[in-house]
Amino acid sequence: MTTPARIRAGGLLLLAPLALALHWTEIVPPVLIFVVGLAAIAVLADWVRRGTEQVAEHAGAAVGSLLTVSFGNAAELTLALFVLSTAQTRIVQAQITGSIIGTTLLFLGLSALVGGLKRERQKFDQAQVGLLSTLLLLVAVAILLPAVFDATERAAAPGTNLASRDEELSLWVSATLLLLYGAHLVYVLVTHRDMFAVGEKRRRPEWSLPLALGVMISATLAIAVESELVTARLGESASLLGLTPQFMGVVVLALVGTISDLFASVAFARADRMDIVIGMCVGSAIQIALVVAPVLVLASWATGHPMNLVFGSPVDLLAVATAAFVVRAIVADGETTWFEGFLLIGVYSLFALAYYFEG
Amino acid sequence: MTTPARIRAGGLLLLAPLALALHWTEIVPPVLIFVVGLAAIAVLADWVRRGTEQVAEHAGAAVGSLLTVSFGNAAELTLALFVLSTAQTRIVQAQITGSIIGTTLLFLGLSALVGGLKRERQKFDQAQVGLLSTLLLLVAVAILLPAVFDATERAAAPGTNLASRDEELSLWVSATLLLLYGAHLVYVLVTHRDMFAVGEKRRRPEWSLPLALGVMISATLAIAVESELVTARLGESASLLGLTPQFMGVVVLALVGTISDLFASVAFARADRMDIVIGMCVGSAIQIALVVAPVLVLASWATGHPMNLVFGSPVDLLAVATAAFVVRAIVADGETTWFEGFLLIGVYSLFALAYYFEG
Amino acid sequence: MTTPARIRAGGLLLLAPLALALHWTEIVPPVLIFVVGLAAIAVLADWVRRGTEQVAEHAGAAVGSLLTVSFGNAAELTLALFVLSTAQTRIVQAQITGSIIGTTLLFLGLSALVGGLKRERQKFDQAQVGLLSTLLLLVAVAILLPAVFDATERAAAPGTNLASRDEELSLWVSATLLLLYGAHLVYVLVTHRDMFAVGEKRRRPEWSLPLALGVMISATLAIAVESELVTARLGESASLLGLTPQFMGVVVLALVGTISDLFASVAFARADRMDIVIGMCVGSAIQIALVVAPVLVLASWATGHPMNLVFGSPVDLLAVATAAFVVRAIVADGETTWFEGFLLIGVYSLFALAYYFEG
Repeated sequence: MTTPARIRAGGLLLLAPLALALHWTEIVPPVLIFVVGLAAIAVLADWVRRGTEQVAEHAGAAVGSLLTVSFGNAAELTLALFVLSTAQTRIVQAQITGSIIGTTLLFLGLSALVGGLKRERQKFDQAQVGLLSTLLLLVAVAILLPAVFDATERAAAPGTNLASRDEELSLWVSATLLLLYGAHLVYVLVTHRDMFAVGEKRRRPEWSLPLALGVMISATLAIAVESELVTARLGESASLLGLTPQFMGVVVLALVGTISDLFASVAFARADRMDIVIGMCVGSAIQIALVVAPVLVLASWATGHPMNLVFGSPVDLLAVATAAFVVRAIVADGETTWFEGFLLIGVYSLFALAYYFEG
Repeated sequence: MTTPARIRAGGLLLLAPLALALHWTEIVPPVLIFVVGLAAIAVLADWVRRGTEQVAEHAGAAVGSLLTVSFGNAAELTLALFVLSTAQTRIVQAQITGSIIGTTLLFLGLSALVGGLKRERQKFDQAQVGLLSTLLLLVAVAILLPAVFDATERAAAPGTNLASRDEELSLWVSATLLLLYGAHLVYVLVTHRDMFAVGEKRRRPEWSLPLALGVMISATLAIAVESELVTARLGESASLLGLTPQFMGVVVLALVGTISDLFASVAFARADRMDIVIGMCVGSAIQIALVVAPVLVLASWATGHPMNLVFGSPVDLLAVATAAFVVRAIVADGETTWFEGFLLIGVYSLFALAYYFEG
Repeated sequence: MTTPARIRAGGLLLLAPLALALHWTEIVPPVLIFVVGLAAIAVLADWVRRGTEQVAEHAGAAVGSLLTVSFGNAAELTLALFVLSTAQTRIVQAQITGSIIGTTLLFLGLSALVGGLKRERQKFDQAQVGLLSTLLLLVAVAILLPAVFDATERAAAPGTNLASRDEELSLWVSATLLLLYGAHLVYVLVTHRDMFAVGEKRRRPEWSLPLALGVMISATLAIAVESELVTARLGESASLLGLTPQFMGVVVLALVGTISDLFASVAFARADRMDIVIGMCVGSAIQIALVVAPVLVLASWATGHPMNLVFGSPVDLLAVATAAFVVRAIVADGETTWFEGFLLIGVYSLFALAYYFEG
């Protein structure tokens, strides 16, 4: 009932050394290395997740959940840090936007569509989902506020250098978001555990703790290596494929770290477990916005390549706000149908078109 | 239980030749021809609808529904095409905005107000209405996205000529919207027919097929003639009445094609059938945005007077987004009261004021 | 079950003459007079409310409610009029924004947090609350529309002087809002009285009518005196405390008139009466936007210091829209928890941060 066996096959791990080998031979076109590297990251991301799950089962619910949160987005974070180190801030922001709309619109849409094809409707419990869709609103506010602040300041005093004020606000907003996420964990894991524990019975770990830790850490390191290969060939590959770097960031880089979630999510939808599907898809977007983005801001500040949260592109802002409102509307009635899935995919396509035509 | 007899009286059809006669005599003031022409269009639009309903009853549910969709907005489409042919793109956009807020805020508001005057509350089924209000969100995104895209591009590279990129994005967005509307028809008419068929029992057609087809087609042609008379006198009449062309587009032109819906809608509200009222009012706005607007974009492109979907006026964008959110909020509890109707009219008035004062 | 006794102690009234005495001695630093004056206003505002409640109990439900509405925000209105008379329009707008987000995000958040600490959840009736949260949407539209109108006009014809058009639109919007609020009173007090009367049984007045009227009027006059003391030292105190005037307007001035509501609201939350809490917090924001703001516009026009409703700061617009959507999301399920309270406070903090860093 988890990720299908196909993508979990160990053989796929060979993609990682393959990308490295192609990099060393230096004779294949860069776009090939780029594609193989991306595929390797997609596979490795799933192994990080498996390792983390196993460690979590050794560690118990509370510590385990913290671990899952921290390493659940290790792939996105690692890739984003490498892109950031090449000072491509706009691409990192596109990646964050793309992860948010990719998981909430595309992945949820595909799952609801596939799950709804042979059923009239798929029901789920609204109590959990309601909180997630409220947190999506917080995500939208957190992404909109620094940009609106920047626009306000720019209009009030044109020509002022806002870099330090934008940076300070971004740091404090990031700290607030991490605090809110922490409170959310306390709520879900401590004070209202019973409400959210449905069907989450503890299983016996399949791996020993050292093996699990080893897999988790080595797969994360391997992602770092692949990320460097991929990042270095980003611009070149984009222009070769006739795509803008923004499109690459939003559609390709954003989804590579979570593509294994898509397979798992569709499988759960087919098994009519929409609670888990929505929890995965929306939960992933919330983690990106409330954990990965703030950590990137703090990390970028610590490492001297400051990235703020001022999303310069209004399309990004509309995309995130749309995701929040459309998901709320779709899940408000406690059920999904194939058409609602199709609609989510349609809304995603509208934004993908906009990024495709962006100059 | 349908449109009251008054407006259906055949005598009103004489307005159409009257406008034409006034046009030929050339002695009456243009504003009189403008007003009589508008009245004629309002009456003819209802006859197109009657003809279409009769044809639909001959044709069976599936084909009939397609026909109703295609010809249900024939009046708006014809009038808009004539305005477009005079290159008044801004007026056509005002017309689209005005149709959306006119049907969802003003018509729905008037119906809820009148229907609620003698009742404490009017209930309706939320399953159908929920989907309509979600589609209104899609409408808002579809109207906002090209404008936000344009603003993003403009800010990123000031001075670039965006016409071709705006045009391309608009064409693809239009195609996506038509596809989504098609999927919606499949959902309502095929896969989830039972859910939406409530109270829609097939009646025996009253007219023969040739008569019905004849009425449908000749009334549409007559609308085209009247539209030409009206469009030619638009600017002159506006300045004579002390109104801006935008106000004319949003409030007058936008509502002339659907005014007969208002009478029908109020009649249904008095009979406490709010399901039908909401279906008519919100459904009409959705058809304007997901069918009429895309068809206008495609038609304008084919005929060489390209119109894109970039709504240049932020007031338009706010109006459409407001309509989507306010209607969602009003219908969320599955009932309406006179005050909710009054509130909808109030929100409509706020926008009418803004268009009135627009320069 | 009302405001705790502490803040109602008569001794606190001595703050008002104290501020005046400090003002006359002229030897204490201005910031001290500013702080004592603010504290005096906070106490006096509660006395106005007590006097009004007593008068209302003499007058009967209908007149009483009108009185409560008119004098319920007497403190905010008086203070704002004094700030307005010194032509600090931006500060008045900050005050309006601050009152709206202060009551709906901070006060409601604190109440839900405190009330939820020892309970799993707190339930309330959705019928009343639903209407309030719909009115919050109207508030957001009313605040957004004039600013969006101004931006539209500015973009269409750069360099035009829009002052008179902005003023005219603001006057008409204000009139419409007052009309809508009037209709709301008719709805709540006349046509749907039974629905809203829950637990509002009439009590015997404790004070004689002359005493009640005397308290109401003299406390309002005292607020006017204190407001003058405070307003005159606003800029100086802000710079001394290292704060921007905007921050003072949004966070300090906006909340001084309603701070006694906070104590009452938290007390009701602890007693698990969330209906009353939400009614107080959201109702207060609605009165500010639909009564105080329009009255300020009309009053400012009558007194020759015209203030329009064009909120120049996009952060203000985002703040009000956010308050509307987040409150809707939180109350949609008919219950609150400590985490939802924490979340509301978190969203308020994000905006407080933005105002703190604003230049």
